Amino acid sequence: MGQGPAGQRDTGAQSVLRIGLLGFGTIGSGVYRLIERERDEIIAATGVELRVVKVLEKDLQVERPGLPRELLTDDFSSIVGDPEIDVVVEVIGGTGAAFDFVKTALESGKNVVTANKQLLAHRGATLFQLARDLHRQIRFEAAVGGAIPIIRVMRESMIAAGIHTVYGIVNGTTNYILTAMAQGRGDYAEALTEAQKLGYAEPDPTEDVSGGDAAAKMAILASIAFKSRVTMADVSYEGIETLTLDDVRYAGEFGFVVKLIGAARLIGGRVNVRVHPALVPEDHPLASIQGSTNAVFLEGDVIDEIMLTGPGAGGRQTASAIVSDIVSIAGTKTTGFLQDCSCYKSLDSIPSEEVPSAFFLRVNVADRPGVLAQIAGAFADEGVSIESMIQKGHADQAELVIVTHPTREDGFFRAIDAIAGLPVCKGRPVTLRVLS
Amino acid sequence: MGQGPAGQRDTGAQSVLRIGLLGFGTIGSGVYRLIERERDEIIAATGVELRVVKVLEKDLQVERPGLPRELLTDDFSSIVGDPEIDVVVEVIGGTGAAFDFVKTALESGKNVVTANKQLLAHRGATLFQLARDLHRQIRFEAAVGGAIPIIRVMRESMIAAGIHTVYGIVNGTTNYILTAMAQGRGDYAEALTEAQKLGYAEPDPTEDVSGGDAAAKMAILASIAFKSRVTMADVSYEGIETLTLDDVRYAGEFGFVVKLIGAARLIGGRVNVRVHPALVPEDHPLASIQGSTNAVFLEGDVIDEIMLTGPGAGGRQTASAIVSDIVSIAGTKTTGFLQDCSCYKSLDSIPSEEVPSAFFLRVNVADRPGVLAQIAGAFADEGVSIESMIQKGHADQAELVIVTHPTREDGFFRAIDAIAGLPVCKGRPVTLRVLS
Repeated sequence: MGQGPAGQRDTGAQSVLRIGLLGFGTIGSGVYRLIERERDEIIAATGVELRVVKVLEKDLQVERPGLPRELLTDDFSSIVGDPEIDVVVEVIGGTGAAFDFVKTALESGKNVVTANKQLLAHRGATLFQLARDLHRQIRFEAAVGGAIPIIRVMRESMIAAGIHTVYGIVNGTTNYILTAMAQGRGDYAEALTEAQKLGYAEPDPTEDVSGGDAAAKMAILASIAFKSRVTMADVSYEGIETLTLDDVRYAGEFGFVVKLIGAARLIGGRVNVRVHPALVPEDHPLASIQGSTNAVFLEGDVIDEIMLTGPGAGGRQTASAIVSDIVSIAGTKTTGFLQDCSCYKSLDSIPSEEVPSAFFLRVNVADRPGVLAQIAGAFADEGVSIESMIQKGHADQAELVIVTHPTREDGFFRAIDAIAGLPVCKGRPVTLRVLS
Repeated sequence: MGQGPAGQRDTGAQSVLRIGLLGFGTIGSGVYRLIERERDEIIAATGVELRVVKVLEKDLQVERPGLPRELLTDDFSSIVGDPEIDVVVEVIGGTGAAFDFVKTALESGKNVVTANKQLLAHRGATLFQLARDLHRQIRFEAAVGGAIPIIRVMRESMIAAGIHTVYGIVNGTTNYILTAMAQGRGDYAEALTEAQKLGYAEPDPTEDVSGGDAAAKMAILASIAFKSRVTMADVSYEGIETLTLDDVRYAGEFGFVVKLIGAARLIGGRVNVRVHPALVPEDHPLASIQGSTNAVFLEGDVIDEIMLTGPGAGGRQTASAIVSDIVSIAGTKTTGFLQDCSCYKSLDSIPSEEVPSAFFLRVNVADRPGVLAQIAGAFADEGVSIESMIQKGHADQAELVIVTHPTREDGFFRAIDAIAGLPVCKGRPVTLRVLS
């Protein structure tokens, strides 16, 4: 079922949303590439073509692979002065020039998408007030949690959920370091060095390890959860720089895992937001968040507990969140594709037999020589390869448990039929699929 | 920061969204109560008052606590014939009368919110086509995953995420039973009986334990993920009725947990959707989903892996999802509150010192009699109570590690100051908060 005549979909967009991109670093180039790559998919889904028409960078001479040179400009006024540009995407970072750019963009009638958590946490009140006065949007899904759509979920799905507590593991660098420490891969300094080598920590990691990055994100989450502006000045935070291996080990002895936790609470109509290392009980869902993964844990009296997890802010994930914001803006300017049925394709089904799966099987067999050879032979005849096996004898019977490598289901079940027919088999084997 | 003059917020709604509620069982009464309870909050957030104006039930004589008798009707035509009703909420269930009601409601110009997964999975194509033709909405967040906003996330945030795989633990009953079996609380029959006693399984559990409920939900998720209609007929499913404790135990020996997994995959432009028990590697995020909790795990080449978890469909959670759908419909009919800044309150902050927290502390002390008494005394003076303690001696020193009960931070840190000043203490204690 489609949202418009199929022909309309196929031949192109109903409208074009023109984008000015401020910054072409890791994030900016990721946004550009994603828009290029998903152009047809987005047109099919929304009827709108996203088109980056100008890219702001300081140095026009640097080679920028994949970016047509004519899109580049070092003149911001050529972007805000272009009446055809609907959306300005700010991925420069910082709270100085970025503030001026966002402010001017709003004043010039543009909607703004930004990934800039510090800008919002420090100076968001001014910008949001301006956007409100001018009937323009600021969207910022990418500012918190990478590709985890936590902003949309809290703003749009949790209006009547009674959220009173938001816990976040919202900084991938520190969670990577703490995971490495907990796994015995070194003390704080060693784990930090490892994270830097692998690109999980910046050469200057201060912003992350001090808790400042997490504090800005928690200010944003708290503002949305409790519908009251929380700025950096309202957030108390501590980092992980002074954590020792001894502390991590002793925490383990008490049944805890050490995490850098952002905690935003609504208590008796007042708000408390802070970031600090905390001992998390081993059976708490947040304790299982490993490496650079992010997680946001919401508690509310209507929803009980909901948790969203996903990779921290890498280039692709942040780009995905920014593009989803741009699409949302498109959705407010065009036919209501977000309300319409989203099934506009007609894909074929694949019969399950054709989909490879690893299998577990358990079968009772007579405990005598050659049995295993017969069973292995039946699998070999169908090209099924055995990954691991347990055999346990009981009197003259044995229980054989096998896990296979991924294999086509039809071949596997032909092998099972053959095995079930062997005189040494007592009953049909039990089979279960393995999630691969 | 508000969305309108504060006075306007405080004195009432800018508009009213009138609702006809079909069914007043667990879910229906939950929706009614939630709308009543959150009326002011929703008005403040959206400018719209949600008002249930008619409730359809067969028996008008049954006492329905909290529901004004004048709202009750046994005449569906009085609901669809009421031009003031904007939204019809269907919580009757089944695919017969519910289909006719939803169809007629759409034909009468109403938007529809439903929690009815079977209706959508079996006959959704017809209803969505009708809604499209008539420019009306069908929203169904409550049909999958209880209060987890998976429908919105996939429809609106994942448009450019390249999702190719959706794994779901989308049936709380079966996950409860499998968790009980894995924890050694009994075999399948015993675990089912326990689940029935505690209300996690119906007296007739067939729909859940056969995999049929999960299959309907996976059909809906696959349709959204891959933008192509998947119906029940396209989903192959198996249940958990024949699972034995032996299988669960052997799976454990191989490092797996047995779960009822819904798997929707896009492979080479074709779709495969199925539900079956599967062995999940112990370190996979889905392996940690316990009891009646639901989880949806998305894989895409842009987002990597994102997981959403939350309670399965209880009355409150389902009601929360339904109300969020109603609010979304309100959002498409009124001023753009979903685009505007959501900070319309001005709550005060609570200083962190006033917020109770449990603490971990570690301190090196001289290993001689009376030391512990001095430290315990310092805590007692500030009303800090000790939950657990480890003491380890090294030569003439001891390392003391303590976890306290939750306590006010200011008192705790006064105690720490006192302890740090004790002559027996070597250096200031290390302190960490415990997530409570």
